[in-house]
Amino acid sequence: MASSMMDSEVFLAFSTYATIVILKMMLMSPLTAYFRFTRKSFANSEDTAMAKSPELRKKMLVANPDVERVRRCHQNDLENIVPFVVIGLLYALTGPDLSSALLHFRVFVGSRLCHTVAYLLPLPQPSRALAWLVGMIVTFSMAYQVFRTAQL
Amino acid sequence: MASSMMDSEVFLAFSTYATIVILKMMLMSPLTAYFRFTRKSFANSEDTAMAKSPELRKKMLVANPDVERVRRCHQNDLENIVPFVVIGLLYALTGPDLSSALLHFRVFVGSRLCHTVAYLLPLPQPSRALAWLVGMIVTFSMAYQVFRTAQL
Amino acid sequence: MASSMMDSEVFLAFSTYATIVILKMMLMSPLTAYFRFTRKSFANSEDTAMAKSPELRKKMLVANPDVERVRRCHQNDLENIVPFVVIGLLYALTGPDLSSALLHFRVFVGSRLCHTVAYLLPLPQPSRALAWLVGMIVTFSMAYQVFRTAQL
Repeated sequence: MASSMMDSEVFLAFSTYATIVILKMMLMSPLTAYFRFTRKSFANSEDTAMAKSPELRKKMLVANPDVERVRRCHQNDLENIVPFVVIGLLYALTGPDLSSALLHFRVFVGSRLCHTVAYLLPLPQPSRALAWLVGMIVTFSMAYQVFRTAQL
Repeated sequence: MASSMMDSEVFLAFSTYATIVILKMMLMSPLTAYFRFTRKSFANSEDTAMAKSPELRKKMLVANPDVERVRRCHQNDLENIVPFVVIGLLYALTGPDLSSALLHFRVFVGSRLCHTVAYLLPLPQPSRALAWLVGMIVTFSMAYQVFRTAQL
Repeated sequence: MASSMMDSEVFLAFSTYATIVILKMMLMSPLTAYFRFTRKSFANSEDTAMAKSPELRKKMLVANPDVERVRRCHQNDLENIVPFVVIGLLYALTGPDLSSALLHFRVFVGSRLCHTVAYLLPLPQPSRALAWLVGMIVTFSMAYQVFRTAQL
């Protein structure tokens, strides 16, 4: 079974792009940690044990705008990449053309890379909004294909 | 392979209901945006460029209770719908009866629609708590079926 | 198809461990509810209807550190367990050795159990950081295997 699934070119393409975009999402965790250390802003008191005084420890528990920005970007990834992966998997199993499947997967991954850049720099709006919208449209298009196959 | 997967009636039913409930979850994003614009409450300073004065821009960065309510509803969806999709996929592959699978999928989707309505209106408790509980029970029931098949 | 998928020992192992770790994540919801009730700290005003006076109701809407700790732990689960499940599913379909697949799945599940214990007690750092890191490495290792099979 496993081999037959991985014999499908569409499924191989889905595996590759889904893994890329999930890894991108996972990289937000070390990025959050990087900003927490450089901005000295933590959420848990046990994370501030390196501080030299109780006053410094308290200061380290205040939220920092750069940290919160990375966290909002991470949250937006969860809210958009998880639906892409679920609906994309079902879409890949409906047996679409390879070219049309690649178009969906590549536009989505590109839109999320743009979204992250637009969020973190940040770029002026509507760059971030457009990147988000393109990703949503790709996922809706794949959902439509799933419904058509399932003859809802 | 793809065709054989989509030949299974249970898997087709799963595809349909999983896509419906994921789309419901995705609709929380535009709903958040709608409340952010009507309540003039944003999280990023670059989102407030339409304001006419720096004082107005600052005011637009204050959290609004209606926006936060939609966001909590979205977060609850992530915490409950993602487990349903993962365990539901594995459950669909254990080869359950179509009628029993449909019962699980329909009750779950119904419970999440009730949960969203109860959260956003809001309805008095325990309506939201009950909707949440019914969804949890459906997912636990499918998890039990997965363990039985896997002969843990 | 369903039966053929569940005939693969690697896929059965994945089903079991993915379900265990998703159930662990789901248990954070009732745990949050438990802390909300014992600490009398809620997020929605309709959840405080049992209070005897309007002043008490207002007090119940203040964030509590114990509740927030459970919620951060839940969020970290979402950020790490969802990638494991997605990449683990694709990895299971690449046809790895059963022993090597079991090693990945067991180390990941163990790392997340340790992470939860370290977060909730809490244990002094770097225990929580190490538990998180081990889980990340397991998921990266499976992603590498997916890329190798897909001949990116």
